[in-house]
Amino acid sequence: MTIDKLFKIFTPKDSTFYPLFEEDVANLLKIAELLCQLMNTQDPSHWVPLIKQIKVFEHSGDDITNRIYDRLDKSFITPFDREDIQSLASSIDDVADNINRACSRIMLYKPKMFMAEFADLANLILEGARLIDSGIKDIKKSDSNPKLTDICIQISEIENKADDIYHSAISRLFEEEADPIELIKIKDILKSLERATDDAKTVSNVFKTIVIKRT
Amino acid sequence: MTIDKLFKIFTPKDSTFYPLFEEDVANLLKIAELLCQLMNTQDPSHWVPLIKQIKVFEHSGDDITNRIYDRLDKSFITPFDREDIQSLASSIDDVADNINRACSRIMLYKPKMFMAEFADLANLILEGARLIDSGIKDIKKSDSNPKLTDICIQISEIENKADDIYHSAISRLFEEEADPIELIKIKDILKSLERATDDAKTVSNVFKTIVIKRT
Amino acid sequence: MTIDKLFKIFTPKDSTFYPLFEEDVANLLKIAELLCQLMNTQDPSHWVPLIKQIKVFEHSGDDITNRIYDRLDKSFITPFDREDIQSLASSIDDVADNINRACSRIMLYKPKMFMAEFADLANLILEGARLIDSGIKDIKKSDSNPKLTDICIQISEIENKADDIYHSAISRLFEEEADPIELIKIKDILKSLERATDDAKTVSNVFKTIVIKRT
Repeated sequence: MTIDKLFKIFTPKDSTFYPLFEEDVANLLKIAELLCQLMNTQDPSHWVPLIKQIKVFEHSGDDITNRIYDRLDKSFITPFDREDIQSLASSIDDVADNINRACSRIMLYKPKMFMAEFADLANLILEGARLIDSGIKDIKKSDSNPKLTDICIQISEIENKADDIYHSAISRLFEEEADPIELIKIKDILKSLERATDDAKTVSNVFKTIVIKRT
Repeated sequence: MTIDKLFKIFTPKDSTFYPLFEEDVANLLKIAELLCQLMNTQDPSHWVPLIKQIKVFEHSGDDITNRIYDRLDKSFITPFDREDIQSLASSIDDVADNINRACSRIMLYKPKMFMAEFADLANLILEGARLIDSGIKDIKKSDSNPKLTDICIQISEIENKADDIYHSAISRLFEEEADPIELIKIKDILKSLERATDDAKTVSNVFKTIVIKRT
Repeated sequence: MTIDKLFKIFTPKDSTFYPLFEEDVANLLKIAELLCQLMNTQDPSHWVPLIKQIKVFEHSGDDITNRIYDRLDKSFITPFDREDIQSLASSIDDVADNINRACSRIMLYKPKMFMAEFADLANLILEGARLIDSGIKDIKKSDSNPKLTDICIQISEIENKADDIYHSAISRLFEEEADPIELIKIKDILKSLERATDDAKTVSNVFKTIVIKRT
């Protein structure tokens, strides 16, 4: 082991974890923006290219997550508790996964139409991704607790709104959709979108834990 | 930091965790009782008020769970292993969540009828909640290992019975229900009820871990 | 406490964990072989006896998993990190669970036919189980890192292939199956099979973590 490597091991790893998380949420933000574009387009010929782009970014997200885990396994000192780094990375990954799952289902199921609530949920997911991005940028500042607490409250409100939209969409679907196969398709797509907002809430729960441990 | 706060930190936290868990399971018991009432009523006009009550208690449960997590993050000394406190709180929360999910699905899907097995599963969930309540009341006693072991065996038997009922209900559903949309509704509701009994088993697994670590 | 027991506690526990894991994966391998037989038989009269056999082995697997957990709770020294032993046991259990779930669904739903992709996925699950078995046999050797890394790459490729097969099966199902109830049945069975390959990937992720921590 060189002196250089030894030196690195005993240096706090803050400077190496934060950029990875910033890259991770920048990637998530891109995915959420593409999802919004997809759900707000009226032209089905735009669906496939957008979904393919989302898939590419979702793979990049997997790579970043793996790099965070690898670093975690090799680091002696971490900027915050190891289990919180792990939960943060895995919950950010879950948001991206569920967005990608919703899109895969659109590709595979070929629903006859999009429900208006797809766009409503996509907009909320994008709002959530922006808040997560902003939280990650702040987390390294020692005085960011009030801001992070505020972000958690906002993400929680988004999750509540998404829940309401999801519930009313499901209720409307069972009232209006007479074709059971179309119902199955739309129900599954709605579920993945709603789960993405649940996962955003999980990210904010990790923020909350980090805030509590600092106080 | 006042002397008082300092003193509190170095006092074992047993006296502060147990009442929270007792509050938590008293709340779960209330939810399970309401579920039994709901599933055993023949009058659909009673459904909505009962489901709304369950939702209120489920929110109270979320608050209690969060208070347990907050306390965990701030405590130096815990009555049993930190990860077991966390698992206990989250698995109790999961039971309540899945009961609430079954009820939401009734509200949103508006199934034409209740299957007889809804009441059978609700009765088993109530039995499970009573055993969990009794386990939590005993856990603080140092000589409660034999009683806790017995509770775990009983919860495991309940889960096996619930599994059998769930399986025969699903099998009957696919044989008898010709309307695919009604089939989807009943299948989803059965699934949430069955998951609630799985989660009760998870609670009992935490009891088991606590017992093993004490021996 | 006898001198004998005291002595045992201070002896590295390698010799007690490895045989349990070897028993666990030998059991998993048996389950995967039976699944292959089931999915490749044309004769429905063979289904029920094969599914019953799988259920028996799945129960044995639960017992082995519980013995690993019990030992973990009682051991001071473990051959690798406690959380990795826990994850390894639980992810192997998940593979078996999802195979068993697919089979239960066949029993309960009585699908009119098997999709060709059932056999394709079963073959991949068997390949995965063989690789897991081989990984477990190697893990105790201190110089097994390159072989384990190679096993992880192969399991990852299997999971990718399974994903592709699952996706094309779902897409074909929604195009060709006009009966919504048959569609629900096949979709659920495919899902459990696909999850089993996801769980095999999770096992390989634990292998990867163990390798990284050793380097």
